[in-house]
Amino acid sequence: MSTPLELALIGIGTGHPEHLTREAERTLRQADLILLPHKGEGKEELAQVRLQLLQHLDIDAARMAHFAIPLRRAQDNDYLQQVDEWHAAIAQRWQATIAAHLQVQSGAKPANTPLQVALLVWGDPALYDSSLRIAARLQLHPEQIRVVPGISSLQVLCSEHRIALNNIGEPFTVTTGRKLLENGWPHGIDTIVVMLDGQCSFNQIDAEGIEIYWGAYLGLPQQILLHGPLQEVKDTIVRTRQQARTQHGWIMDIYLLRKR
Amino acid sequence: MSTPLELALIGIGTGHPEHLTREAERTLRQADLILLPHKGEGKEELAQVRLQLLQHLDIDAARMAHFAIPLRRAQDNDYLQQVDEWHAAIAQRWQATIAAHLQVQSGAKPANTPLQVALLVWGDPALYDSSLRIAARLQLHPEQIRVVPGISSLQVLCSEHRIALNNIGEPFTVTTGRKLLENGWPHGIDTIVVMLDGQCSFNQIDAEGIEIYWGAYLGLPQQILLHGPLQEVKDTIVRTRQQARTQHGWIMDIYLLRKR
Ligand SMILES: C[S@@+](CC[C@H](N)C(=O)[O-])C[C@H]1O[C@@H](n2cnc3c(N)ncnc32)[C@H](O)[C@@H]1O
Ligand SMILES: C[S@@+](CC[C@H](N)C(=O)[O-])C[C@H]1O[C@@H](n2cnc3c(N)ncnc32)[C@H](O)[C@@H]1O
Repeated sequence: MSTPLELALIGIGTGHPEHLTREAERTLRQADLILLPHKGEGKEELAQVRLQLLQHLDIDAARMAHFAIPLRRAQDNDYLQQVDEWHAAIAQRWQATIAAHLQVQSGAKPANTPLQVALLVWGDPALYDSSLRIAARLQLHPEQIRVVPGISSLQVLCSEHRIALNNIGEPFTVTTGRKLLENGWPHGIDTIVVMLDGQCSFNQIDAEGIEIYWGAYLGLPQQILLHGPLQEVKDTIVRTRQQARTQHGWIMDIYLLRKR
Repeated sequence: MSTPLELALIGIGTGHPEHLTREAERTLRQADLILLPHKGEGKEELAQVRLQLLQHLDIDAARMAHFAIPLRRAQDNDYLQQVDEWHAAIAQRWQATIAAHLQVQSGAKPANTPLQVALLVWGDPALYDSSLRIAARLQLHPEQIRVVPGISSLQVLCSEHRIALNNIGEPFTVTTGRKLLENGWPHGIDTIVVMLDGQCSFNQIDAEGIEIYWGAYLGLPQQILLHGPLQEVKDTIVRTRQQARTQHGWIMDIYLLRKR
């Protein structure tokens, strides 16, 4: 791109306006253009939450650019390659959206003043999020990219349950549902946090001596918290999760497992 | 305690006022009493950073209660027991400080309005911090304790280096310098983050094929970042760390190690 650009990836927390940091708020207010991706089917509510956040800050709709996230091809070949192609397609969409904006706004900014583009990232941009990898495809200088950390779902899980992530001086592992089942419980670790788990993997491991702290829709009005010995509460969690997903049409949940 | 009490443990990030969330800011503004612990020797600068943060928010000094953290007995017996005794001593100090405040202020608040007490926690209260465990000794109802998540040093490390915590879909482990050396590199994990490491443990592991992202004084004016193949940069990090500690009288550092 010929116009100088500064891209801020802004962690916004999990949807609650109170999660926003001063830095996130200031960066949003100063942005010339805010990219608002829409994923469609079931995810539209999350796009709405982002929009409400911006409205809550009285940010002018003229500075927002909505665009659709291309679909991910889910075919026979290798997972990482699919992701790679998908990221390339999203990067193109970002560029096209920025270019369209520049055409409309041409002349509105003094020459050589970089265009401040902001992208809202759910939770924290470092945690199971692709925005940084997609941004790397725009071939900007590192200094043109700024990451604004945000409150992650991991932290909201702990703060709402009033628990610490780690036992005193002990390590912990953060993993996905798939990796928990593939690798089993990591050796020498008493605490694990599981994200991106669509299949209730906690229900497929040995529950003996394990405590679970589960949270869904954290930070949102429909927030649900459950905790207890895994053996005793796992059925309730599976049932609650199923009902909530049916009721709302989508769910995001995360949980911490701790060995006693 | 007879006066009803609400205790907020507020994650403040790593000292940069821009890390504060709206929730943290609001909770601080509404607090009747803000507990400000002082640890002495070398840690006084961190107490100053907290104080400047409150001054930055124009918070009245009359609402702040400074107190000294008792020393931890470092003797022959078991580490966890030492920590336990130390936490008990700190909890007593909190209670005494609150009681002293109530005596001076008696009558200032309408009866049955809970006293809002706030404690500033460095980074995020869930991550290698004892405040929740100390608070548990005050025998409050769970509803009397509120945890306000804050931006952790882990997140600032990643945002400043513009890196993701995890590889796509992969787990990561957060550990301490001591545990890294005791347990070795965790099996099946490509990324680890090391905190609470006073001994440059990265310098004592097999450096082959490992990338390091190191940060000290993150979020503070003296922030230092270094990264590269561990083999190539480890000496520079050891030297930089030593010089910085001599210069400032204290250091806090954290690093991420990733296998290629
Ligand atoms: C693609 S990852 C993004 C994580 C995000 N960057 C963060 O910092 O929380 C999505 C996963 O995060 C977790 N998650 C995100 N938001 C959540 C919420 N509000 N409640 C519960 N879990 C959430 C779920 O495990 C979900 O599968
Ligand atoms: C007792 S733990 C507290 C962590 C804190 N609750 C957090 O969320 O970052 C202290 C350790 O956190 C890391 N740390 C905290 N603040 C830091 C900073 N500003 N820069 C680098 N490391 C920091 C260091 O590894 C340090 O040894």
